[in-house]
Amino acid sequence: MLRLRRNFHFSRHFLLLKPFSTAAPPPPLHLPLSHPTYIVWGSNTSVGKTLVSAGLASSFLLSDSPSHFLFLKPIQTGFPSDSDSRFVFHKLSSLYRRRHARLSLLASDHVLNASLPVLNTVSGCGDGSELAMCELGRYEEQRLVGEESGLGSRLICKTMYAWKEAVSPHLAAERESGVVDDALVIQSLQSCLNSGLGVSGESEGAETRAMCLVETAGGVASPGPSGSLQCDLYRPFRLPCLLVGDGRLGGISGTISAYETLKLRGYDVAAIIFADNGLENEVVLSSHLRDRVPILVLPPIPVDITDDLMDWFDNSQKVFDSLKEIMLSAYSKRLNGLREMPKKAKNIFWWPFTQHKLVPDEAVTVIDSRCGENFTVFKDQGHEFMTQQFDACASWWTQGPDAALQTELASDMGYAAARFGHVMFPENVYEPALECAELLLAGVGKDWASRVYFSDNGSTAIEIALKMAFRKFSIDHGILDSQECNAEAQRTELMVLALNGSYHGDTLGAMEAQAPSCYTGFLQQPWYSGRGVFLDPPTVYMHGGKWYLSLPVGLQPETLRLENAFFNSRDEVFDEKRDGSDLAEIYSAYLSQQLSYSSKSKSLLGALIMEPVIQGAGGMHMVDPLFQRVLVKECQDKKIPVIFDEVFTGFWRLGTETAAELLHCVPDIACFAKLMTGGIIPLSATLASNSVFESFIGDSKLAALLHGHSYSAHALGCTAAAKSIKWFKNPQTNLNINSEGTSLRELWDENLVYEISSHPAVKRVVALGTLFALELQADGSNAGYASLYARSLLLKLREDGIYTRPLGNVIYLMCGPCTKPDSCSQLLIKLLSGLDDFISESRENLESCHS
Amino acid sequence: MLRLRRNFHFSRHFLLLKPFSTAAPPPPLHLPLSHPTYIVWGSNTSVGKTLVSAGLASSFLLSDSPSHFLFLKPIQTGFPSDSDSRFVFHKLSSLYRRRHARLSLLASDHVLNASLPVLNTVSGCGDGSELAMCELGRYEEQRLVGEESGLGSRLICKTMYAWKEAVSPHLAAERESGVVDDALVIQSLQSCLNSGLGVSGESEGAETRAMCLVETAGGVASPGPSGSLQCDLYRPFRLPCLLVGDGRLGGISGTISAYETLKLRGYDVAAIIFADNGLENEVVLSSHLRDRVPILVLPPIPVDITDDLMDWFDNSQKVFDSLKEIMLSAYSKRLNGLREMPKKAKNIFWWPFTQHKLVPDEAVTVIDSRCGENFTVFKDQGHEFMTQQFDACASWWTQGPDAALQTELASDMGYAAARFGHVMFPENVYEPALECAELLLAGVGKDWASRVYFSDNGSTAIEIALKMAFRKFSIDHGILDSQECNAEAQRTELMVLALNGSYHGDTLGAMEAQAPSCYTGFLQQPWYSGRGVFLDPPTVYMHGGKWYLSLPVGLQPETLRLENAFFNSRDEVFDEKRDGSDLAEIYSAYLSQQLSYSSKSKSLLGALIMEPVIQGAGGMHMVDPLFQRVLVKECQDKKIPVIFDEVFTGFWRLGTETAAELLHCVPDIACFAKLMTGGIIPLSATLASNSVFESFIGDSKLAALLHGHSYSAHALGCTAAAKSIKWFKNPQTNLNINSEGTSLRELWDENLVYEISSHPAVKRVVALGTLFALELQADGSNAGYASLYARSLLLKLREDGIYTRPLGNVIYLMCGPCTKPDSCSQLLIKLLSGLDDFISESRENLESCHS
Repeated sequence: MLRLRRNFHFSRHFLLLKPFSTAAPPPPLHLPLSHPTYIVWGSNTSVGKTLVSAGLASSFLLSDSPSHFLFLKPIQTGFPSDSDSRFVFHKLSSLYRRRHARLSLLASDHVLNASLPVLNTVSGCGDGSELAMCELGRYEEQRLVGEESGLGSRLICKTMYAWKEAVSPHLAAERESGVVDDALVIQSLQSCLNSGLGVSGESEGAETRAMCLVETAGGVASPGPSGSLQCDLYRPFRLPCLLVGDGRLGGISGTISAYETLKLRGYDVAAIIFADNGLENEVVLSSHLRDRVPILVLPPIPVDITDDLMDWFDNSQKVFDSLKEIMLSAYSKRLNGLREMPKKAKNIFWWPFTQHKLVPDEAVTVIDSRCGENFTVFKDQGHEFMTQQFDACASWWTQGPDAALQTELASDMGYAAARFGHVMFPENVYEPALECAELLLAGVGKDWASRVYFSDNGSTAIEIALKMAFRKFSIDHGILDSQECNAEAQRTELMVLALNGSYHGDTLGAMEAQAPSCYTGFLQQPWYSGRGVFLDPPTVYMHGGKWYLSLPVGLQPETLRLENAFFNSRDEVFDEKRDGSDLAEIYSAYLSQQLSYSSKSKSLLGALIMEPVIQGAGGMHMVDPLFQRVLVKECQDKKIPVIFDEVFTGFWRLGTETAAELLHCVPDIACFAKLMTGGIIPLSATLASNSVFESFIGDSKLAALLHGHSYSAHALGCTAAAKSIKWFKNPQTNLNINSEGTSLRELWDENLVYEISSHPAVKRVVALGTLFALELQADGSNAGYASLYARSLLLKLREDGIYTRPLGNVIYLMCGPCTKPDSCSQLLIKLLSGLDDFISESRENLESCHS
Repeated sequence: MLRLRRNFHFSRHFLLLKPFSTAAPPPPLHLPLSHPTYIVWGSNTSVGKTLVSAGLASSFLLSDSPSHFLFLKPIQTGFPSDSDSRFVFHKLSSLYRRRHARLSLLASDHVLNASLPVLNTVSGCGDGSELAMCELGRYEEQRLVGEESGLGSRLICKTMYAWKEAVSPHLAAERESGVVDDALVIQSLQSCLNSGLGVSGESEGAETRAMCLVETAGGVASPGPSGSLQCDLYRPFRLPCLLVGDGRLGGISGTISAYETLKLRGYDVAAIIFADNGLENEVVLSSHLRDRVPILVLPPIPVDITDDLMDWFDNSQKVFDSLKEIMLSAYSKRLNGLREMPKKAKNIFWWPFTQHKLVPDEAVTVIDSRCGENFTVFKDQGHEFMTQQFDACASWWTQGPDAALQTELASDMGYAAARFGHVMFPENVYEPALECAELLLAGVGKDWASRVYFSDNGSTAIEIALKMAFRKFSIDHGILDSQECNAEAQRTELMVLALNGSYHGDTLGAMEAQAPSCYTGFLQQPWYSGRGVFLDPPTVYMHGGKWYLSLPVGLQPETLRLENAFFNSRDEVFDEKRDGSDLAEIYSAYLSQQLSYSSKSKSLLGALIMEPVIQGAGGMHMVDPLFQRVLVKECQDKKIPVIFDEVFTGFWRLGTETAAELLHCVPDIACFAKLMTGGIIPLSATLASNSVFESFIGDSKLAALLHGHSYSAHALGCTAAAKSIKWFKNPQTNLNINSEGTSLRELWDENLVYEISSHPAVKRVVALGTLFALELQADGSNAGYASLYARSLLLKLREDGIYTRPLGNVIYLMCGPCTKPDSCSQLLIKLLSGLDDFISESRENLESCHS
């Protein structure tokens, strides 16, 4: 049987169950930009990709200035009778002789690895090895001397992997027991791209004198050796593309579809070129792709297979020259664009949460693209290149897709936009909104929620939740009589009960529900008054591998048993048995007192609002789950509606689909956003119980909840959410999920977490689900949200391929629900190393101060 | 030269400049659902589409129950030597004889229209007509009598348009002077689908005994006769698809790409079927498309062209039987889904602005899809069908794309998701955000704005604008000293200056900036207090073809010249010459008084906020532009920052890119959303002048604007915005834009607007840009937001194919910036007819009351 992509993925994953390896993680992707590198795709097989490659090579090399050209064929089947790299090598030699080139040319062809059947054919002997692929190392070279023997050009042709049968690579690989996994192809290709050209690339004007082509096999979506489609396989590089189209009958359709498949993977196509077949396919293609991509037409390819094509190449030369110019100019344009981006951005963006005065040009990160959890970023460190950084800020906690889900979501976004664009929601129904709502009620709203109210982001979801809660409370407590305000309403001031350190968003209503902080002063929002009773919550954290309880001032019992203040494991923290502890009684007494106290004031507590388990923006604090459970119970007993703000915690962020599951209790209203769409597009949902919904039912439209945003339940967002909700909880697609689909496996290696939590630079650690957070030991102005204390550590991590953003002296790493534990371990290893540097640096600073 | 899509579109458009036609508008699209209808696509030419069609027909017809099968070939080239409808007709006859079917079969083949060269070939004579295509009317019939002669089945094969040359339809049509435009193809196909089957479809169990197939020509993206791609041409029907894949080498790629092209047009593919070629293409295809679409494999197609294929059909019969079952079951599933949707929606959605008690099941609109400005909706009126409704509520004012832009945006959404997903914004830069910001500053922010702050929707954009304005005001007026709060700040209460009737969104901060209304009471938001000084604005409106000024109480001058209270045209209303009128002086004196009055109170006016020109949600009132211009000047003189809320008015909604252009003045801060992304995805931008931005620059992060949402400047939104901003203002893509790209042509026919504004049911009219609004004459509870007065009119309009939503007794029609004036005229004609019915109904009600 074939080893297909997903199966393979599975097997790779299982390897990671072996004991944690301390080997240095592989260096992040590195792609030089000192010269143009293009990937050549075909809109079908047999459309002449290699002819185009050879034509381009001739246009490049047989000119009057010394040039280097690298032709790479990563995947070759039908070898040795078919060898595209040797074809280019031979044709260039023939063209060189025919055209009496002035400069000398050193041309070579090198086949690196091959399957056993190839080896048997070529060398006549096999070693019976069990290895998938063997080193072949077949090398040919030809030195062609021109009029000027001193200066010379260089053609390097390479085949990376070759199989014997002239079939699709996945079939050949399977039949010849020579499967190469995707990671290896990517790694080998990277190494060829970095070393293969044999020029430093740093010499002046290098960009016009060196070029690499990577030629794919078959069509754009033909499988590679593992069964992965090649358009997916090569995606991490996102090389600019050249598409060889089809001039035959049906070729318009094939070319457009191939182009769309490439765009749907995030590729940019610099040009389309194809051989004429008398059908003027370029007319419709140009019209359809107008302004987007230049289209070039080559003379018809001779059908006689004995033709040496020399005349054809001669007749095509002008077209290839144009193509070369287009490719060079697209390269320059791209590079100039990348170079100018930081300055332009600094001139016109107004970044949120950013003091522009503190951002130097060189601190601006140019993000070229994302593939799964990784950004590809442009760097200039003397030489320019693309590299990868793990998105450890989870793009502000939204990031969810692995590379496979990202591809799926891209396809879904195209489909939803084509099918629906955006359509009106109130009083209407359409598939994605219905499916999304059904999935929400069956998942995060299971057993308590009956209605879904869509809006755009966490902040609006909270504003809606508050409006729901206040109506419900007002009716339950006689402030409203069946939606008519009575005299009571005019005198009533409603407040929320909330926790200090909480954060619910930046619109005024959401702000009013949180305690005063640096986000809320006159400087930020003169209208903020803080309409809540804000309690200091007890928190728990890990240090030196153990979990501790930290009680706030005001909640310090006279006696507290040691067993209550200290936990051997995180599971103990969440254990429901704690409900019977004396601490539970202490909490309950404290909260009763607080609630009765505020019931005496003229304002009423109309809602409890809280982030279950983890307070995110407030500094990644874990609130004692026992405290929150008791708090919910106290409020529900008093008919105060309970709102869970699961914007951050929802959808597996903490290892279960909701953080409510960790608390073992349910709210009356809950807000979701961020990861709900997989992390691709804004959408939020406020879920409510039926009794909350009922408090808006009446005879007048004025009793309805009159809150909405234009894109309510927009089709793209609902489509993304429906796909992601299913993807995350399906063990077939999310290998981190347990077989019941109820929780994520442990993503953060226990030993590494222990080590970090014991590190002298570290005050506390929280590791839960996709979140790993630590607080650096810091005093005075080094602590808190505005602190720049962690800067050197962050720069070190970025150099190491980890993109993080701090919350002052709190550093966190956040992955997606599908991220492989191995990737998480690599992050922790790099973090540990960064902490070592950080502490020794601090000590040096300290010593130099004292000396 | 070829007549290509865009050219064609252009010429069609010019026809509309002819005097307005009062002919009845064509009926909206109607697609029966009494039996399954599928469209058959090929992943390439010569993959055997017609073999699949014939096989399916045989599986359907040569069974033991009487059945009807319609095979439609809309586009046939190479005729008469190639005729797919005749092939199906002949093969079925042969198979009928071979299989000794029990039931009799009446089979026919009908070729409706053909080019002149076809006519010459077939009849040997041409009439030299100038017509593009001629009626051919070639009809063949065969009655095959089975054992049971009583009951019978029916095969109807039809070719709609035939050309002689065996090339792509666009080439054949061009060469044979037989171009058929897209609208005609669609119209003919609709008529064949409605009448062609010859069964009522209403008999019991009809769904298992009738089926239609529409077979396309060539590949999925092969051009039709006008040059439009067929996947675009047939899109308005969005028929469920059958994709005939490719089993050959390269066929995996071609099949996947073709599938993706269909999905990227919003099609659903029920099954993929292809003939085996020994390459096991189904293995990779199944793995890649797992859970999404069944894949069926047929035996290899004989290569011998003399083979009569009878054995092949016999060998394939089981596969065709399975395919038939899959198609029937997908049809049932779809239909059941559509039927259940209203009830499900009513059970779990919580619609915004909707009193659920007032929504009966039958009032829920099931939206199957959108194509440009039209919804396709599912209806059950005894028989079930799909029909179209013009989205005249512009899906809450967001709707912008025509069908061509929608296709472009779909492709862009797929690309942006694949390239970026979502990436982190602060301190970063990536192409779509940069391009979008540059376009905003060069367009809607031209000559005044220097910074772009991204957020998610209009409401958040307003909250950000207020924070910006208050900071700027506080620094300018000494309330803050270089971002340190001084004692003054603690005592200061900041208010906004705003207009009664304004609306800025539903989050608390945005609500606080608007006057008390039904949206703001304790019932909706107990925290609302209305932190503004709210002025009654003078308004202008049209009645009986003339424009009138309406001054509020409190702004009634003792004398007002007639010339000030009355305008002959809308242009006069906007004329800057009015700045010199005595009305300008009256406004100025009034506003000075208001401003000096409030400067004496303890609270300060920290910002002016207003919707320029039109107050949307407040009832589509046009504020006197002169008044707004004077107001802006008075505020800027007093260093009160001016915020324009262009969320509704921006991006051509009122005929210019911003409503500020109509006012001839610029703000300090402006908010955009809705149409900014073309109406496909939520995104908003708050633009600010440099001096506003500077008031947030300081040494501390705490001085920065600490407001943000997770998906700030998300790549999908910015990509959609960049495309739409360019599309709307480019005369090549938006035929409504004048050649300078500065304003839309008049979309609402002058005569019809006059007629409606003179209608006895109508109190006032506003027609401007893409907006046509009218207020119905109504008294007491019939007026205002909660009124249901317009209900019967709305129902009538929906029956007529117009989807509207009222603002109480205010009805509006809203199109997109690219909507053809002809479509707008059709809307007005239907509205006029609806008004006639409405008034006679009211009179009847009145009479029956009196009698």
